[in-house]
Amino acid sequence: MRSPRVVALGGGHGLSASLQALRHTTEAITAVVTVADDGGSSGRLRQQFDILPPGDLRMALAALCEDTQWGHQWSAVLQHRFGGYGELAGHPLGNLLITALWDLVPGEEVRGLDLVGRLLNTRGRVLPMSLQPLDIEATMGVPDDLGQEVLVTVRGQSRIAKHPGRVDTIRLVPEEPAACPEALESIKLADVVVLGPGSWFTSVMPHLLVPDLLQALHSTPATRVLTLNVSLTDDEAAGYTVAGHVEAILQHAPGLTFDHVIADPQVVSTDAERAALEDAVARLGAHLVVTTVGKMRAPGVHDTLRLAAAYRDVMASLP
Amino acid sequence: MRSPRVVALGGGHGLSASLQALRHTTEAITAVVTVADDGGSSGRLRQQFDILPPGDLRMALAALCEDTQWGHQWSAVLQHRFGGYGELAGHPLGNLLITALWDLVPGEEVRGLDLVGRLLNTRGRVLPMSLQPLDIEATMGVPDDLGQEVLVTVRGQSRIAKHPGRVDTIRLVPEEPAACPEALESIKLADVVVLGPGSWFTSVMPHLLVPDLLQALHSTPATRVLTLNVSLTDDEAAGYTVAGHVEAILQHAPGLTFDHVIADPQVVSTDAERAALEDAVARLGAHLVVTTVGKMRAPGVHDTLRLAAAYRDVMASLP
Repeated sequence: MRSPRVVALGGGHGLSASLQALRHTTEAITAVVTVADDGGSSGRLRQQFDILPPGDLRMALAALCEDTQWGHQWSAVLQHRFGGYGELAGHPLGNLLITALWDLVPGEEVRGLDLVGRLLNTRGRVLPMSLQPLDIEATMGVPDDLGQEVLVTVRGQSRIAKHPGRVDTIRLVPEEPAACPEALESIKLADVVVLGPGSWFTSVMPHLLVPDLLQALHSTPATRVLTLNVSLTDDEAAGYTVAGHVEAILQHAPGLTFDHVIADPQVVSTDAERAALEDAVARLGAHLVVTTVGKMRAPGVHDTLRLAAAYRDVMASLP
Repeated sequence: MRSPRVVALGGGHGLSASLQALRHTTEAITAVVTVADDGGSSGRLRQQFDILPPGDLRMALAALCEDTQWGHQWSAVLQHRFGGYGELAGHPLGNLLITALWDLVPGEEVRGLDLVGRLLNTRGRVLPMSLQPLDIEATMGVPDDLGQEVLVTVRGQSRIAKHPGRVDTIRLVPEEPAACPEALESIKLADVVVLGPGSWFTSVMPHLLVPDLLQALHSTPATRVLTLNVSLTDDEAAGYTVAGHVEAILQHAPGLTFDHVIADPQVVSTDAERAALEDAVARLGAHLVVTTVGKMRAPGVHDTLRLAAAYRDVMASLP
């Protein structure tokens, strides 16, 4: 029996967790990664070399390194960030490796990433969601001096993440960018597509704002899985209930349906939360799977093997 | 029959050429590399991270990458130098990879290099000649306004390379540094040791100024080979005849003998040059091998296969 073809969409630590779990369930993984980071090492490289921000791509590559001592060492080296205060401070080695490959095959971002993957002998493939570096712009609700919420516009993933207040809606700048053709093809041919977990507004939802990517998610015959976060407090979506996360998807991508939504019991600890989530998930057309996927001793982080078990169970029902 | 154990000493392009040739003749290569570079990327990294200058070590690792498409790609990536004017400009990716590994295993330079070698699946082993970053200081003869030569002291490999005048003698700073223990061990167990080619005063001769290394070269049962440069005009030894190169060895390491000295016919194009070289080589206790080892179409550069043939012929006479 061939391995199911799985496409995982997201960015940052959330996508990395999803990829590490998916490796236990399939040989055929494609990561489709946000390219809107503008802070830290990625922001500096993006500005200096006029390239896609490499950071989220690097994290996905590190998650897909070989499951051998050699692969684990490569993964650690890719993630290693230079310290100090000099010119290299803050750059993870993997970001520099991706930048070097893009330098060697200019204008061929996908080929450059494929070459990095071959040099590191990674499993699967890592693709950017768009070949164009993007920015995220958010409308945020911020309390004024009288405690009334006023809406402000905040531009840039790194600024949105740190800005006080509540993200209301997000847009991409430029609006309606073209999708990476190889990412569209992978979604079209997938057996399963997985969206999330991750920073909800800046890593997970940007994919839904790329028109061709949203269209591909609509029309793919694949089983669609939405993986919710295990923490609701540590990103720019702080203040949202878990049902609110699902509603944000309904709001930004009206009409898009899912087959399964995976949630950890700790995010629906009251009957009211559970009922609200069930209601939102029903509007998404999906079946709610509540199962422990968080780590016992590290709240807010997905447990690789438990998340793998949840993905395996969902895949067991594949036609 | 086991592969002969060969130790190649030098630095820069010269050592790289020697290693590429030696790969055709043996499976068991150890490179022992100068650590006195203070210019360019190596100089910046050395200063910022208080580490050995990685540049010559990187070139040796690149020369020992796998002889497959994968290995050739890695070699090209290691050697790829970032352009532009930003913070990464001028750094070859391989220097940053070595720096990252040293960051991950602080204080263990040899283990860090062995790890890089394993990640890249290089043949052989690359070692620094000393675990201490060194500087080279030269006494140089410089013509004054009346055309008389006056002696001046110039400190730093990069400054010596660019300084007008003739290198008279060199010293290491600090003087008499300790050798890398693994380098001593490799020389003790070698069947063949090869010194040169390369920048004569700043890449080849520094090894002879590390007392334990010189002692190991004296006492090793290995066949000792000295490979002369194919160009006499393009480094800080410009102005020296080829016999002068050999005399500089006699002067800086009195009593050290060699078994074979390999020279290209183009450096002894007159009978007088040939006689002077034969005389100097005899004082070194060696047999002179004059054979074409230069590239036909790139004057001054060793031809990998011709140099390999010369090494093979020398090794054919091993006991």
